[in-house]
Amino acid sequence: MNRFGERFAFTTFGESHGKALGCVVDGVPAGLEIDEAFIQSELDRRKPGKSKFETQRKESDTVEILSGVFEGKTTGTPIAMVIYNENQKSKDYSNVKDLFRPGHADYTYFHKYGIRDYRGGGRSSARETAARVAAGAIAKLMLRELGIGVMSGIVEIDGIHAGENLDFEHAKQSQIFALDPSVEEAQKEAVEQALNAHDSVGGAAYIRVTGAPAGLGEPMYRKLDGAIADAMMGLNAVKAVEIGDGVAASRSKGSRNNDQITSKGFESNHAGGILGGISNGDDIITKVYFKPTPSIFIEQKTVDVHNNDQTYFLKGRHDPCVAIRGSIVCESMMALVLADMVLLNMGRKMDHLKALYPQS
Amino acid sequence: MNRFGERFAFTTFGESHGKALGCVVDGVPAGLEIDEAFIQSELDRRKPGKSKFETQRKESDTVEILSGVFEGKTTGTPIAMVIYNENQKSKDYSNVKDLFRPGHADYTYFHKYGIRDYRGGGRSSARETAARVAAGAIAKLMLRELGIGVMSGIVEIDGIHAGENLDFEHAKQSQIFALDPSVEEAQKEAVEQALNAHDSVGGAAYIRVTGAPAGLGEPMYRKLDGAIADAMMGLNAVKAVEIGDGVAASRSKGSRNNDQITSKGFESNHAGGILGGISNGDDIITKVYFKPTPSIFIEQKTVDVHNNDQTYFLKGRHDPCVAIRGSIVCESMMALVLADMVLLNMGRKMDHLKALYPQS
Amino acid sequence: MNRFGERFAFTTFGESHGKALGCVVDGVPAGLEIDEAFIQSELDRRKPGKSKFETQRKESDTVEILSGVFEGKTTGTPIAMVIYNENQKSKDYSNVKDLFRPGHADYTYFHKYGIRDYRGGGRSSARETAARVAAGAIAKLMLRELGIGVMSGIVEIDGIHAGENLDFEHAKQSQIFALDPSVEEAQKEAVEQALNAHDSVGGAAYIRVTGAPAGLGEPMYRKLDGAIADAMMGLNAVKAVEIGDGVAASRSKGSRNNDQITSKGFESNHAGGILGGISNGDDIITKVYFKPTPSIFIEQKTVDVHNNDQTYFLKGRHDPCVAIRGSIVCESMMALVLADMVLLNMGRKMDHLKALYPQS
Amino acid sequence: MNRFGERFAFTTFGESHGKALGCVVDGVPAGLEIDEAFIQSELDRRKPGKSKFETQRKESDTVEILSGVFEGKTTGTPIAMVIYNENQKSKDYSNVKDLFRPGHADYTYFHKYGIRDYRGGGRSSARETAARVAAGAIAKLMLRELGIGVMSGIVEIDGIHAGENLDFEHAKQSQIFALDPSVEEAQKEAVEQALNAHDSVGGAAYIRVTGAPAGLGEPMYRKLDGAIADAMMGLNAVKAVEIGDGVAASRSKGSRNNDQITSKGFESNHAGGILGGISNGDDIITKVYFKPTPSIFIEQKTVDVHNNDQTYFLKGRHDPCVAIRGSIVCESMMALVLADMVLLNMGRKMDHLKALYPQS
Repeated sequence: MNRFGERFAFTTFGESHGKALGCVVDGVPAGLEIDEAFIQSELDRRKPGKSKFETQRKESDTVEILSGVFEGKTTGTPIAMVIYNENQKSKDYSNVKDLFRPGHADYTYFHKYGIRDYRGGGRSSARETAARVAAGAIAKLMLRELGIGVMSGIVEIDGIHAGENLDFEHAKQSQIFALDPSVEEAQKEAVEQALNAHDSVGGAAYIRVTGAPAGLGEPMYRKLDGAIADAMMGLNAVKAVEIGDGVAASRSKGSRNNDQITSKGFESNHAGGILGGISNGDDIITKVYFKPTPSIFIEQKTVDVHNNDQTYFLKGRHDPCVAIRGSIVCESMMALVLADMVLLNMGRKMDHLKALYPQS
Repeated sequence: MNRFGERFAFTTFGESHGKALGCVVDGVPAGLEIDEAFIQSELDRRKPGKSKFETQRKESDTVEILSGVFEGKTTGTPIAMVIYNENQKSKDYSNVKDLFRPGHADYTYFHKYGIRDYRGGGRSSARETAARVAAGAIAKLMLRELGIGVMSGIVEIDGIHAGENLDFEHAKQSQIFALDPSVEEAQKEAVEQALNAHDSVGGAAYIRVTGAPAGLGEPMYRKLDGAIADAMMGLNAVKAVEIGDGVAASRSKGSRNNDQITSKGFESNHAGGILGGISNGDDIITKVYFKPTPSIFIEQKTVDVHNNDQTYFLKGRHDPCVAIRGSIVCESMMALVLADMVLLNMGRKMDHLKALYPQS
Repeated sequence: MNRFGERFAFTTFGESHGKALGCVVDGVPAGLEIDEAFIQSELDRRKPGKSKFETQRKESDTVEILSGVFEGKTTGTPIAMVIYNENQKSKDYSNVKDLFRPGHADYTYFHKYGIRDYRGGGRSSARETAARVAAGAIAKLMLRELGIGVMSGIVEIDGIHAGENLDFEHAKQSQIFALDPSVEEAQKEAVEQALNAHDSVGGAAYIRVTGAPAGLGEPMYRKLDGAIADAMMGLNAVKAVEIGDGVAASRSKGSRNNDQITSKGFESNHAGGILGGISNGDDIITKVYFKPTPSIFIEQKTVDVHNNDQTYFLKGRHDPCVAIRGSIVCESMMALVLADMVLLNMGRKMDHLKALYPQS
Repeated sequence: MNRFGERFAFTTFGESHGKALGCVVDGVPAGLEIDEAFIQSELDRRKPGKSKFETQRKESDTVEILSGVFEGKTTGTPIAMVIYNENQKSKDYSNVKDLFRPGHADYTYFHKYGIRDYRGGGRSSARETAARVAAGAIAKLMLRELGIGVMSGIVEIDGIHAGENLDFEHAKQSQIFALDPSVEEAQKEAVEQALNAHDSVGGAAYIRVTGAPAGLGEPMYRKLDGAIADAMMGLNAVKAVEIGDGVAASRSKGSRNNDQITSKGFESNHAGGILGGISNGDDIITKVYFKPTPSIFIEQKTVDVHNNDQTYFLKGRHDPCVAIRGSIVCESMMALVLADMVLLNMGRKMDHLKALYPQS
């Protein structure tokens, strides 16, 4: 099941060290202008090797559109995009191909499928997320036409948390996508210390949606918060998802946590813009927690495919903190969820039908 | 979209104060023995009015099976179950029918659909979860045949957290489903204080799965953790979901968080039994955080359907802490997710096909 | 998989001799007025025992709405409908419970599920179609609001085919739903002869849709013609489906078969209103061919569940020509397909989105 | 909706004159050996320009696998295949870009999407079926492992019908895939006459499945016959689908049409191997009727996008009888339907679960 979404649906394919990866985006409305440079710029935000805080694998991540766009506009047919892998044959895997890397999906893929592409994690590699970002860029182009914005950044690294004021413009320029400049240096230092110790750190991304109308989300079983949780928890290394105040809400009282309503709108936004699984018109707020990168350069215990005890010692290049580049993927997934919800919501009242199917 | 699951799929219907609610469970394998008393006992665990810690609404929640079972066994056809509402006409809603209750889905349902059943929240009422529990009971019967167990309880109320040792047998008997007897009284007191203050408190449920084989979960877009997060976050009042160590994992180091592997199994279970979205054979662990019940008996600001400022003052009966009965629903949803994953996993390798389709 | 449709989706449940059968219709837009008498009248058209041309089983087929309708209108939540079986325990099946009836699904259900409800065919009984008709009535109410009409009748029985002029008003009153009064008597006689010979005859239904806008149908894999073919061929006893000229089109020339276009519309309708799987605004025309009822009162060869040779001799009551009542079910399925297509089509162009999501 | 299948699911993309077309096949079991030469040979059977009976467009239809195969075997991850268009810029479309070709999807695509890729039909071109054939080849490889064979040929052209004896080996060698050598010349002549008259003819394909076990097909709403009808009717130019005796069954009597059962199997196969929507273990038989190619070289009436009356006069190259190459696509679709049904059937009884999930 490599497909996400009901109406604005995308399917991804590809392995870390295979020929290519890519996606097919199905359900994009016809007549949307496609800004190819924007799609590439989104991929560039995610691509590795931009600073010492990221893996040094070099990939240009150049995306090519194969279908679905004609004379600069979508035609309503599926949009296939492909990214050829350049870094395909860089390494000899013979010494690790029978070992399971602790904290990785090697063990579970092998037990599920009885076979695995051991080159860099194969399909389970975070490299797959490049395809999500390409699809997400199309979603953003569509949402932009409706006045809906999606933005993200890093609020926490190694337990060092941002303050109240989050600066999304700053995050765009920051090497670690930091939302709070006042803790950025401390956060960077935590990453560097982990690097120097051949270890890794975790962190948290924060995603905000502005301009979303009330009414998005499909009860009971494609609620907006459920869909967001699915999208985020389904990302590699994510272990917790919060909507609005999240865990803190569960430690609040009803009298404090309820967002009271006035004719000018909600007085607060503890709910993170979602009530009963449906958007309420306020900003939609999500926090996503990533575990520390499992790839560390310290000896670990493991077994091989024959269940013999072994020692694992990793070489190579890896993000010391997957949350950093992960935040861009969260942002893309949020856009993809919302694009789907915008389409799913159409036809939920008879007024919609009467507006789009006027009788002659 | 009132359907959940791909292969072991259920659809629910019904409103809080309508004639009935129920579900249709589709995809249950033929030949499963159906223990009707067990299904009823699961509903009894969730039903209201069992103690002062729950709403005093009286419902027997008697379930009737309409189809799909013949001579005590499933036939492979859909199992419809219905629960008639007894408490259907108990109240006059005329004074609140145009008001939005703060923290509730009234506002969003109205904006989505342009119409709402204002009686007790209508479809958005937590009463809908009775249907989930009925469906979940079927899932549990199936999982039991495969040696898979699902259990739950309360780990936290109003910030008072259980210790390390969780006692699932104790939780079954506890009025608040408490997993740690040593904090149970303090947790109960917190609920009572809120009750007395006409306020409400939040809490957290803990769900453990034992006996699940490695290999469950469908990359990329129906991963086990993503599906669990969807199932849990889609429950009323849930604002955060953790897998394994959750938020704490994001504050750990890779060297500490990785579960090292030996020929006897994993040395720890920070991952909560899931790697790369697929079960690894260890216990599957989830924590689910509920906000305090939005229904409180304190005056709040709101607006009416014409956006006039109004004051809202609730009467009636409500759970002071929705997490308590919510934990049973989490357990049911977990069973439903796993039952689906068990079926989805079939056919993922050619060996499966050759075993089930031997050539004559 | 007991669910049909993507957006206007229904799930049916129930067996021929179980407690009840019914359906849950999901995705109906909010604000649609529900005329319960109309729904019942649709069920009355399909119900058995109205004339000698139908089975003499007595069922009132009284439908009860359990959810989804509030103060006479849909709320956007699922509409559950239930029809309790009255004729539940009428017969002793002990002598046939291990036998497979030739031409029936007994054999295949047993081989698929390893178990079967042998009472009157269980789930495979045509009785299940009552639930389809209930769901179809909701679809018709929705389509009516958009000016789309669906009508049906019988064009052929035992090879006796209607002429060019089809009279849908006549069909409504006809005991055999005959579209051509000039052949009606001959068709009736064919049925009676089969009855007298303890045999059965086949026939064909004709379904016409008027007022459907151009643009319905989802390429590539939920085309309008594909969806219609699926819906019709999936009915018991159907063995062939034609769109427009059907088989005759394949014996025509391109120069004759192409519907030429003028500024006043298409000059002919060989295509049956569908081009490339999408409606062209013309009437949508389908013909559906039913095999003769497999239940005949003549000795036949069969085997039992242990594969021993046996003789089968049926007693009881059966439609001598399933096409007759089947035509009503075809009409319902057509309405259900179109209702789904109407919803699926929303959001296929950016103009739709801009109309329904105006920016403030 | 460019995806077909539930478990063995494929998504296609691409336009007639775009950069490339292709597919992503999702749900293929891991451990299947992939014979790339076989996949290419399947595409070669469908590719144009092999004889005067086909369009003279030249395309090598070389397929490239981008993902999902590792060391010659499937890994359980999605298999992406791409076919680059060589014949991309061959023509000036300026004089026809605003005209609708009679009998084509131009009119309906334009009305649905408000925009269309007018180059050779864009997405609605039969060229899309190359992607289906590539996906179908994977399905065939899987079915072959289970002893299931799929074969096809032409039984009728321009009303000239094959006799009783069908020779599938002959069809493979025949330029028109003729199943009956005794009428092949007459069928060829009919095509040539149409060619010479600048006209086109219709025809019918016949598809047979051998070795399918009893039990395939999912009641009620993914029955085997419904799925086949959907797959076939969804092909360009198809206007009728028959299962088994099809239309002729509706003109038979029950006593003749029922396939009686003995301990050695069914005595006849009027049912075409399907009862109640489930395979009965006999050969599965389908006939698919194609209209004559709408592209003819005779002046026709049409309108332009502004609804002005116009005259249409086609130039270029087209198949004079789309049924011929269409038969290969039918065969591929049949394989895809069956592969899906094989997977869907797994888990339909508890015995399946106990076999694949033995408790330790």
